[in-house]
Amino acid sequence: MLVQPKEITGKGKTSMKRGELLYEGKAKKVYLTDDPDQVWVAYKDDATAYNAQKRGSIQDKGQWNNRISARLFQYLGEKGISHHFIKELSATEQLVKRVSIIPLEVIVRNIAAGSLAKRLGMDEGVRFSKPVLEFCYKNDQLGDPLINDDHIATLGLASNVQLAQMKEVSLLVNRFLSEKMGQCGITLVDFKLEFGLDGEGKLVLADEISPDTCRFWDKESGKRLDKDRFRRDLGDVEEAYHEIWSRLGGEAHV
Amino acid sequence: MLVQPKEITGKGKTSMKRGELLYEGKAKKVYLTDDPDQVWVAYKDDATAYNAQKRGSIQDKGQWNNRISARLFQYLGEKGISHHFIKELSATEQLVKRVSIIPLEVIVRNIAAGSLAKRLGMDEGVRFSKPVLEFCYKNDQLGDPLINDDHIATLGLASNVQLAQMKEVSLLVNRFLSEKMGQCGITLVDFKLEFGLDGEGKLVLADEISPDTCRFWDKESGKRLDKDRFRRDLGDVEEAYHEIWSRLGGEAHV
Repeated sequence: MLVQPKEITGKGKTSMKRGELLYEGKAKKVYLTDDPDQVWVAYKDDATAYNAQKRGSIQDKGQWNNRISARLFQYLGEKGISHHFIKELSATEQLVKRVSIIPLEVIVRNIAAGSLAKRLGMDEGVRFSKPVLEFCYKNDQLGDPLINDDHIATLGLASNVQLAQMKEVSLLVNRFLSEKMGQCGITLVDFKLEFGLDGEGKLVLADEISPDTCRFWDKESGKRLDKDRFRRDLGDVEEAYHEIWSRLGGEAHV
Repeated sequence: MLVQPKEITGKGKTSMKRGELLYEGKAKKVYLTDDPDQVWVAYKDDATAYNAQKRGSIQDKGQWNNRISARLFQYLGEKGISHHFIKELSATEQLVKRVSIIPLEVIVRNIAAGSLAKRLGMDEGVRFSKPVLEFCYKNDQLGDPLINDDHIATLGLASNVQLAQMKEVSLLVNRFLSEKMGQCGITLVDFKLEFGLDGEGKLVLADEISPDTCRFWDKESGKRLDKDRFRRDLGDVEEAYHEIWSRLGGEAHV
């Protein structure tokens, strides 16, 4: 049996009703609620990689990602980062602000890995003297291509001010997350963020922060504790997701 | 018989001697001279496209590109752009400053075409409201990948100051070249520049400016007068190169 997150076991229990399915992504379903400014997110166990060319399922991934992401958004909120997360609704569900997602993936990299290592011909594991930021155009048909500031302006994906804000916030998130994960014995190698605009046009951190969207390496052993275990068929996939939750001090899986 | 460029028919005739082959690229050979600060460039008729996956030869390309490039560098010099070009040595050869090439291709785009159109899913022919700049890492093994400012810094390919200078000069070159080509009834769609550092560490425009490195479209008909005729097997390849030379007011091909 799973211990339910605290928010819905006590008096904080929500009366929110799940409405119509708004959108189904590769890893989450998003539903309307009776509040037009809030949506209900259900994390799935489905896993995809390499622009969905590889597909599978990771047992309990929905649960771990929902919990990990909730905890990390709460932590970033305490540090002053504006985000979409409101509260957990169940082991696999959370309530978030309804935002209009900016179709950009912001990638922050501290150590060479994955597509960057391939693109630049670098060995994985090389630490950069300064974090490297990348923007990819969220477009499955085009394969989420790397783009630059001029492309973003030309496509009208974000204003110059929004772009500058995204860069600044992403570097702050990197600093806070690196610290947090470091305290848990984990090296934050790189991660992907998404931003959205809320009802008032304010830029807020959105989507999720989880082993699906971050590269987490065990500080001691270098063991990968993230989706690379699935991407590269390294085994112990479920265990890696659970391990991240445990390191964050999560409740026991009983 | 070809009319020889003026520089070497009169009293300006060079006594420069061609020395050892320093480097052979896809489209040019570079030789040492008896002056350590100058190299002798011989343009070839060889043509490659798509990272040398397509190979061929374009009759007289070496001659047209040598002449076109010489003329355009001279023109840009008159406009105040620092460059490597010194003088023509023959129909297919020129003398240039010896520089250490910065391994970046700077691409300036006024109209969507080629790899940008593919990357961003845009139709070819769409004019941008502002020029779009791109940097590619000159690395055949990696396929000259698009990179951003952070990648350039991480790889140490150029300093921040050099990068800012390259952007500024490239936009100036775009303004001057667009004007020049416009007067010849040609739309400057996009082009690639390379920069080098001379013996004193000064940044100068280098490489070539020709139908190999620019997209030139006839203003009236939209006909492509550049390497796309070779890349895409459009026919009339030699004619296009010759046409650009003629439009620039070149001497007759007798």
